[in-house]
Amino acid sequence: MSKLYNVAVVGATGLVGQEFLKIVVQRQLPIKGLRLMASPRSAGRRLLVGEWELEVEETTANSFHGVDIAFFSATSEVSRELVPSAAKAGALVIDDSKAWRLEPEVPLVIPEVNAEDLQGHKGITAIPNCEVTPLVLALWPLHRVTPVRRIIVDTYQSVSGTGALAMQELTEQARAVLDGHRATSHIYPHQIAFNVLPHVEPFLGSGYTREEMSVVNETKKIMHEPDLAISATCVRVPVFVGHSLSVHVEFVRPLSVEEAQAILREAPGVSVQDEPSVNLYPQPWTAAGKDEVFVGRVRQDVSHPAGLALWITSDNLRKGAALNAIQIAEELIARNLV
Amino acid sequence: MSKLYNVAVVGATGLVGQEFLKIVVQRQLPIKGLRLMASPRSAGRRLLVGEWELEVEETTANSFHGVDIAFFSATSEVSRELVPSAAKAGALVIDDSKAWRLEPEVPLVIPEVNAEDLQGHKGITAIPNCEVTPLVLALWPLHRVTPVRRIIVDTYQSVSGTGALAMQELTEQARAVLDGHRATSHIYPHQIAFNVLPHVEPFLGSGYTREEMSVVNETKKIMHEPDLAISATCVRVPVFVGHSLSVHVEFVRPLSVEEAQAILREAPGVSVQDEPSVNLYPQPWTAAGKDEVFVGRVRQDVSHPAGLALWITSDNLRKGAALNAIQIAEELIARNLV
Repeated sequence: MSKLYNVAVVGATGLVGQEFLKIVVQRQLPIKGLRLMASPRSAGRRLLVGEWELEVEETTANSFHGVDIAFFSATSEVSRELVPSAAKAGALVIDDSKAWRLEPEVPLVIPEVNAEDLQGHKGITAIPNCEVTPLVLALWPLHRVTPVRRIIVDTYQSVSGTGALAMQELTEQARAVLDGHRATSHIYPHQIAFNVLPHVEPFLGSGYTREEMSVVNETKKIMHEPDLAISATCVRVPVFVGHSLSVHVEFVRPLSVEEAQAILREAPGVSVQDEPSVNLYPQPWTAAGKDEVFVGRVRQDVSHPAGLALWITSDNLRKGAALNAIQIAEELIARNLV
Repeated sequence: MSKLYNVAVVGATGLVGQEFLKIVVQRQLPIKGLRLMASPRSAGRRLLVGEWELEVEETTANSFHGVDIAFFSATSEVSRELVPSAAKAGALVIDDSKAWRLEPEVPLVIPEVNAEDLQGHKGITAIPNCEVTPLVLALWPLHRVTPVRRIIVDTYQSVSGTGALAMQELTEQARAVLDGHRATSHIYPHQIAFNVLPHVEPFLGSGYTREEMSVVNETKKIMHEPDLAISATCVRVPVFVGHSLSVHVEFVRPLSVEEAQAILREAPGVSVQDEPSVNLYPQPWTAAGKDEVFVGRVRQDVSHPAGLALWITSDNLRKGAALNAIQIAEELIARNLV
């Protein structure tokens, strides 16, 4: 009989936590016990997970006794504070915050790309930012054939990346605008309904945002390419679920569109949607709720002899977060690393 | 006394035509007579322009007798058919369609950039695509100081670029989605509400769209740089008015952020909105209804030693279309070219 695990989900009531619980059931992770944890505000709530009805507990430093795998989807502050306690108690942590991703001893993993980085883990692993995972998942198979030299990416990120309150804000603002009223903003600094904001996460001194530098630094780390040239502009758009990326890649040698499409068609986790003649290309509305990273609009970049342009969309709550975390757990189990 | 002109507006009932009529009054173009023209469907409608109430006439090949300046904001098909008749009748045409822009003998003009190209006109002039004008207006003053070598631009284009019916479609779809109903699409191939579509204008064999190649070819023509490297991905977003552009520029030599901002602050038609510390950056919601092209998020591109990244937003109906056309008329008048 194969081993069963005690799993804790920190942030169980959040959007990513909820998605995690759905996928855990779908994929039949070998679970012995499941504990749902959240902030004191949510403690006591009862959630249905598959056939189990479970009560949400408050997360504290002492919560992790007996836990084998702890999935954290909380703020960076919570992760920074509680992840070490969980690891010390013997849980293997899979963290979804920015807190640990760039720590050298923390594997930052997309299983289809760098599962072997899990090998040396010290009790804490991390999943990449929700737009980094689709970017690297799509570029990695191309990079293995013809190395990538430079990446320019502009994002179209949905409000679910911010959380449930942002989805509510978009709903309320959209209704207000349609009814001819003024929209009020609480979560974002400006109206997001029928608007776009070139502002995801706080600004840094360089003029980049923390989100944009996540794209830069996490991509380099996952690809083991510290000298890769990469730049990003991260933009919030009035979409509920699904992040899209417009990507311009330079390779060391030209890669034809047909070759790139053929490689992507074989790539695990990737689905090519690229039939302009029938208006088939990735869209957030159709990617939401799906596991795959959708790639389309692959074309020779007219501004560079060895460049390709492409368009990527994926569900930021699934492959961008919860699904990737569960795949890491599956990989850790398969490798006897937990 | 200065000369007065007979002006015709073809497409007077469209979104750009309406904006044109507002701006004509605001800027007091020296008009003797104003004739409103449109398709047979709109003929007979009466419109208020300043203090005049005018009846819309059907546009035909014989409509242009006595017209000095004819502004066309119609489909490419209509422009291709009727612009020659207008020019033959002696009207100076300012055309807003894609039909004539790349014709070698047709000046394609942003007055702040290449007004002198009007000099040799043969009766037909054209205004650039609504996202090309802000792009070139912002890059031109930088290019004059330090030549631009390559441009990568990804757009966030509003539905008013398609027209009034697209604005109605966004409104109706947004209501449907908020009410939990299915959205139906007539104007766009897929839902635009709470979605983004990497699809503006038809696809070409190369995988680029006609809109994307407009960005490429019109930019080269206006800047008189046929060998400029430039690539674009054009994306429709659920915004009513205001096109935004995420731009990554490579120069022949490094240009500092401070220098670029200083140049842009002096540039005609440009307004710098670049104070990340107080969340000040261009947004379509705030740019709509304004004349300026707003530029912000100027920063050293971390992926290129002589690169800058920036973010541009402008009202696609005003500087992107009607205002630029009126400025061309003013320039033609000032130069005694009409």
